[in-house]
Amino acid sequence: MEQFKQWAKLPPMGWNSWDCFGAAVTEKELLANADYMAANLKDYGWEYVVCDIQWYEPKAEGHIYKKFTELTMDGYGRLLPAENRFPSSAGGKGFAPLAAQVHAMGLKFGIHILRGIPRQAVHRNTPTVTPGVTARGIAQGYSVCPWNPDMYGVNPDAPGAQAYYDSLFQLYASWGVDYVKVDDIANTEFLPNNPYSARREIEMIRIAIDRCGRNMVLSLSPGPAPLEQAFHLKTHANMWRMSGDFWDRSEALDKMFALCEKWYTHVAPGCWPDCDMLPLGVLQLTETDPRWRARKTRFTENEQKTVMNLWCMFRSPLMFGGEMTMNDDFTLSLITNRELLEIDQFSSGNRPLFSDPEKAVWTCRDKDGNDVYAFFNLKHEAQTLPFCFNDGDALYDLWSKEKIALPDGALTLALGPRESRVFRILHKAEKA
Amino acid sequence: MEQFKQWAKLPPMGWNSWDCFGAAVTEKELLANADYMAANLKDYGWEYVVCDIQWYEPKAEGHIYKKFTELTMDGYGRLLPAENRFPSSAGGKGFAPLAAQVHAMGLKFGIHILRGIPRQAVHRNTPTVTPGVTARGIAQGYSVCPWNPDMYGVNPDAPGAQAYYDSLFQLYASWGVDYVKVDDIANTEFLPNNPYSARREIEMIRIAIDRCGRNMVLSLSPGPAPLEQAFHLKTHANMWRMSGDFWDRSEALDKMFALCEKWYTHVAPGCWPDCDMLPLGVLQLTETDPRWRARKTRFTENEQKTVMNLWCMFRSPLMFGGEMTMNDDFTLSLITNRELLEIDQFSSGNRPLFSDPEKAVWTCRDKDGNDVYAFFNLKHEAQTLPFCFNDGDALYDLWSKEKIALPDGALTLALGPRESRVFRILHKAEKA
Amino acid sequence: MEQFKQWAKLPPMGWNSWDCFGAAVTEKELLANADYMAANLKDYGWEYVVCDIQWYEPKAEGHIYKKFTELTMDGYGRLLPAENRFPSSAGGKGFAPLAAQVHAMGLKFGIHILRGIPRQAVHRNTPTVTPGVTARGIAQGYSVCPWNPDMYGVNPDAPGAQAYYDSLFQLYASWGVDYVKVDDIANTEFLPNNPYSARREIEMIRIAIDRCGRNMVLSLSPGPAPLEQAFHLKTHANMWRMSGDFWDRSEALDKMFALCEKWYTHVAPGCWPDCDMLPLGVLQLTETDPRWRARKTRFTENEQKTVMNLWCMFRSPLMFGGEMTMNDDFTLSLITNRELLEIDQFSSGNRPLFSDPEKAVWTCRDKDGNDVYAFFNLKHEAQTLPFCFNDGDALYDLWSKEKIALPDGALTLALGPRESRVFRILHKAEKA
Amino acid sequence: MEQFKQWAKLPPMGWNSWDCFGAAVTEKELLANADYMAANLKDYGWEYVVCDIQWYEPKAEGHIYKKFTELTMDGYGRLLPAENRFPSSAGGKGFAPLAAQVHAMGLKFGIHILRGIPRQAVHRNTPTVTPGVTARGIAQGYSVCPWNPDMYGVNPDAPGAQAYYDSLFQLYASWGVDYVKVDDIANTEFLPNNPYSARREIEMIRIAIDRCGRNMVLSLSPGPAPLEQAFHLKTHANMWRMSGDFWDRSEALDKMFALCEKWYTHVAPGCWPDCDMLPLGVLQLTETDPRWRARKTRFTENEQKTVMNLWCMFRSPLMFGGEMTMNDDFTLSLITNRELLEIDQFSSGNRPLFSDPEKAVWTCRDKDGNDVYAFFNLKHEAQTLPFCFNDGDALYDLWSKEKIALPDGALTLALGPRESRVFRILHKAEKA
Repeated sequence: MEQFKQWAKLPPMGWNSWDCFGAAVTEKELLANADYMAANLKDYGWEYVVCDIQWYEPKAEGHIYKKFTELTMDGYGRLLPAENRFPSSAGGKGFAPLAAQVHAMGLKFGIHILRGIPRQAVHRNTPTVTPGVTARGIAQGYSVCPWNPDMYGVNPDAPGAQAYYDSLFQLYASWGVDYVKVDDIANTEFLPNNPYSARREIEMIRIAIDRCGRNMVLSLSPGPAPLEQAFHLKTHANMWRMSGDFWDRSEALDKMFALCEKWYTHVAPGCWPDCDMLPLGVLQLTETDPRWRARKTRFTENEQKTVMNLWCMFRSPLMFGGEMTMNDDFTLSLITNRELLEIDQFSSGNRPLFSDPEKAVWTCRDKDGNDVYAFFNLKHEAQTLPFCFNDGDALYDLWSKEKIALPDGALTLALGPRESRVFRILHKAEKA
Repeated sequence: MEQFKQWAKLPPMGWNSWDCFGAAVTEKELLANADYMAANLKDYGWEYVVCDIQWYEPKAEGHIYKKFTELTMDGYGRLLPAENRFPSSAGGKGFAPLAAQVHAMGLKFGIHILRGIPRQAVHRNTPTVTPGVTARGIAQGYSVCPWNPDMYGVNPDAPGAQAYYDSLFQLYASWGVDYVKVDDIANTEFLPNNPYSARREIEMIRIAIDRCGRNMVLSLSPGPAPLEQAFHLKTHANMWRMSGDFWDRSEALDKMFALCEKWYTHVAPGCWPDCDMLPLGVLQLTETDPRWRARKTRFTENEQKTVMNLWCMFRSPLMFGGEMTMNDDFTLSLITNRELLEIDQFSSGNRPLFSDPEKAVWTCRDKDGNDVYAFFNLKHEAQTLPFCFNDGDALYDLWSKEKIALPDGALTLALGPRESRVFRILHKAEKA
Repeated sequence: MEQFKQWAKLPPMGWNSWDCFGAAVTEKELLANADYMAANLKDYGWEYVVCDIQWYEPKAEGHIYKKFTELTMDGYGRLLPAENRFPSSAGGKGFAPLAAQVHAMGLKFGIHILRGIPRQAVHRNTPTVTPGVTARGIAQGYSVCPWNPDMYGVNPDAPGAQAYYDSLFQLYASWGVDYVKVDDIANTEFLPNNPYSARREIEMIRIAIDRCGRNMVLSLSPGPAPLEQAFHLKTHANMWRMSGDFWDRSEALDKMFALCEKWYTHVAPGCWPDCDMLPLGVLQLTETDPRWRARKTRFTENEQKTVMNLWCMFRSPLMFGGEMTMNDDFTLSLITNRELLEIDQFSSGNRPLFSDPEKAVWTCRDKDGNDVYAFFNLKHEAQTLPFCFNDGDALYDLWSKEKIALPDGALTLALGPRESRVFRILHKAEKA
Repeated sequence: MEQFKQWAKLPPMGWNSWDCFGAAVTEKELLANADYMAANLKDYGWEYVVCDIQWYEPKAEGHIYKKFTELTMDGYGRLLPAENRFPSSAGGKGFAPLAAQVHAMGLKFGIHILRGIPRQAVHRNTPTVTPGVTARGIAQGYSVCPWNPDMYGVNPDAPGAQAYYDSLFQLYASWGVDYVKVDDIANTEFLPNNPYSARREIEMIRIAIDRCGRNMVLSLSPGPAPLEQAFHLKTHANMWRMSGDFWDRSEALDKMFALCEKWYTHVAPGCWPDCDMLPLGVLQLTETDPRWRARKTRFTENEQKTVMNLWCMFRSPLMFGGEMTMNDDFTLSLITNRELLEIDQFSSGNRPLFSDPEKAVWTCRDKDGNDVYAFFNLKHEAQTLPFCFNDGDALYDLWSKEKIALPDGALTLALGPRESRVFRILHKAEKA
């Protein structure tokens, strides 16, 4: 196994600031969520606290990307936390103090970056860490993100290009970063017909991390990452997005089933196809439109459980997207079902048994070698699913904790609209 | 595991008549090759004798598809062996006598079919086994193969469609067929933008086999089967082609490396992505152009070994394509390397470690749990590949049978043009 | 000008049996419509009576293509009228008696064919007119129509291919056919990525007509004919379809505006991009579903006029699709507006002046050199269009026959939902 | 006719600095070529002197686009001539003094621009002419050119966007510009699947020119402009490129025949599909690679005449690309064939009669109503083309000035490799 895969042997579990705070999260909000995680979730395996995009933008608001706005930057074209939003970074300390606080809670700290070099550095023609090489020298002027105006891609053939990426990750290592989500990289749109045009930037980033002296999980975004590139993704990153941004819409959930079916053979220790953040609980707190601000997830309770069940049966990374300090009991219960989380973390042989647009059945073996089955009703009305187990089998429901005896092995499962259930087959001793 | 996967728990190994006899193979030639297999290869695991396309065409020649020629057919639109080519089939006995002879040698018998119903049956409007349903009733007039004019696809919504496929496989079961290669089905070209338009015919064939009362391995052809359809392929067939027809061309071999890299996660017992036949030994005996008739494989000896090494490291089905009775010693040695064949049959964890257009390294674990590594030089000139094992490791070469000690773990492997080598890591006892 | 363009110097005007009688028209119905045309329309320029598809199918019904049904055919693979539907064709006389009756009314006679050779001939292996060449010899087994199962395309490289097409058109010439609509040819779907794959069959048909000794207008169907092939179309055919089948749906009418805008530069004597039949009056008389049988056009009166106005301003061929003997007064008025029909037949410089999804303005010069303007409201609600003419201009409305003085040149045109108006600028003498 | 079409009633004829001076032309070189034109070519209709790309870049070299280099710019984000290259522009006078000198020679002055606003202005956040609107406010950060790093596209929905374009053309009008070639606009590549994504910038530029108070010919570049957009192009621009950059390569010339065949119906006064510059004479004087510097055109003499013949028979704009002061006699003769140039300027009915990959025949009617025919041998070897004129016709060769009598109307034309000939049919009086 490549060294870097050791750093994410299990699907990473954590919290990401995007769904609730958009581009505008602050140090205070991050710490409040880290506190919550340490107090309520750490014991269940949740550990990453990830600061998403635009932390270097002093005037960030909502989920908006402001065009060409001033970014906080050091003398080598490297972005720094905006001090007005992250006061502990004052005096050039970067995220080091914040990371230290998160570490002190027994948690890990992650950041988001966009591939490339700030356009602001390019047009100011700042130096890079390589003497004689300026930002202009390594930027590729047409390699741009279609939805964010901050960066130019880096030309991998330019002298100083690798050194620039090395300098980024040295900085992040010095801050104590444990996880980096790199964006505009697993699927790019600036060239007709090549969504994987950032392949060589992925390679530079892999090298830079391996050289930086600190273990950092590498997450690539956004999807859809090309299925044909699975081998390259697996040999360069710890996790990568299978889809565009996942929000709380039924259609998006339906699509995720099809994606999981295409990607499940690539799930392996250190290599995690990623279903994206969990848009659960309270979302969009910084939203400028008051109609959507601080709204609850649009998913029904059944769908919320279905999200958790699919993510875990597939072994996706789990990154909670809501403002955790506002979690209600139901929301908290979703992410503290220890038995389900152990499926995500420790199961094997995860795969779909059956799948059509109306229903799906997934299976895996849990950490003790017991067979687990998940049944999904994808319809918006109730339906009954029949299934044949062996005579005398008994099932254990991972949510209700009830046992169901099946004397003749036949299960006739009545599921409500969008409902799903996860069962473990009880072994002999448990049945008694 | 679905029942049908049990019938091909290991990658099928055998001989197929296409590469050497094209459309024109005869009973006599099949039996001669079966005799050869029983005498020389059976002990190594080779067991299938497969009669490829056009066995129902009395006037078949070379590798040509004659347009709209007369086909031998029963009263229900089912093709029968041409009696002039397969004399034992006389009197409506079909392939039963030939299959019996093959079985008597301790081997298994396979046939090729094209999806659909003969156009000849449709235009004569013959009955089908379903009373009141004629060939016209179940044929889909625009579902045609672009390279063979014999069949129409079957309309899955027509009454009698499933019964027609059932009747085919009942007939084949009555003959004693063990393996069916279905063509024009894993990649179709008659519709713009949907290479998997035969999906529902695949489903009907799966059902028909499961109902026919005899275990038959199902092989789907030609490729490229769509990678996005891997789940459907795996839940319906035992093997499917990753590429178009593979012939003895260097470029085709290069492409196979890329395909293996895309498909290897789908290799599993009962589910075999297929690298296609081995175009080795003496080929094209029935070729009408004398320049190509009965020619030797164009691959160099290095490339021939590379073919065997890749197919086995990937765990592809192995179907020999040459006229075996004309095998020279080198050719025979290629397919009787027991240690390599055991890699194909019994290894696990098969995967590429590294791959670029100039070189590849694959690895797996053999049946005893020892690590195996294959090194491929894809260049047409020599090159040296460095590789780091552990201090004190020792290697065993699966072809030369030599041992190589690596006191400091460093291997510097000099490979000739297109050469490849396969090594097993020796365990302690063997090193002594 | 190529010779064949002389045969359609003006956009052909006539009636086609498809919209009202589908695949099932009879001699009696054709003659009834011919009688009606001679009595009511001939004087306005309407002259072609065209028998659409399946006239060779004895059991034809409604708008259905029966799969592989028996077709009436001569000994050389040429289709003949079904005698039960066209009694005058009995005794091998083909359409000659019917054409003679149409000619006797002072009208012209047209037929529809599908490119290729009947599959029935191919599978019976009938001879062709070329000694030694059978239907099998010239058919291309994968060149099939996606919506009609009757024919195989002809292989242009096969000996006897051109002679087969020559024999078809000699037969049609002997019958007295004046117009041939060839189908499955301007846009084919059997190959991925090449909608113009019948190019060489178009060329064979051009040659066959030019050799047959009778002037026949050549119409190619269905569209969308590829815009990039305009030059080839113009040098081989008199008219070709810009769209798929046009029916009485608002969206289809909207699309026709966009198509006219793309094709108008190719309108020229002998070369007519074709807007397709006019689905006006009473339609679908043979429809098997009683809900739709003998229904009136779904277009509003405004839309019906808009159809006529666009077709005429563009100079499209005009082929009436309704059962004419059931025309009401309004319907008859649509196709007997002599001034509008003269725009279709004799105007020049036809082009859009302005076009967006809500409105369009077209202009041309009439046969006397007067400027003509058509204003189209494409919205389903009323709107007012302003337009500037010259001071003192006056307009003449081609439908209401009213004059409108514009002292200051300003027109403010209030148009109802989907309404259109066509105006001629009055010259000085007329204004008085 | 729209007003702006009046400004280019005939295909524009002139000289453009790109082919010979690339990005680095100077005032001195422009004036030398203007002098040459006034002395040698003006009498033949040549009149535009066009300064191509990068005139605002002080350090420009060769045909290179320097990434993110400093550009000369005014206070409103508008580029100005680099004073080191265009000394007369000193003191903020822009191109006014140079244009005045060109005008004084009786010629017209043109410039090249790239759509959009300088990235330099955006990242400096300069004001625009609209109070309160900065460069950032109107730039679209992902709308970039794939081959030139200078500009961002303008967001048509941003307040101040139209005013920015208005301010550009007001400046150019104040300088006395007569012709503007706008680049990165007729075919853009920054979005998958939409090569015409600059549609609304074209519309803004049309409005800006119409408002600026000076007649300026609008030329759009580069191609391939989408054929489907012909109507929009014709209603917004005077000329637009049918291809990517045309250089002196045989294959490019072959492709131009296919393009002319697709576009010829759109040739009309004021609307000129553009074959691109004439890469004749001495080219690439500023080329940094000495192997190519100041090289002669790679076209053979036959091909050079073929270029002139095709451009003129099609009525393309004619923009000479060579350094004219270095013209040899042959080169000068190519562009001073008055009879051929009159075909370009005044002929009508221009169209291909015949076209295949080996030969083409074009025809038109000259200004006196005489028929003209051009015969092109596209093969690289000699061939003989037969053609039938009327009995007794006689031809006049527009290059050799010879007459050819055709007593029986038959022409058998022997053409050398890539040779072409243009003939006018003599009328009766001339034959005598």
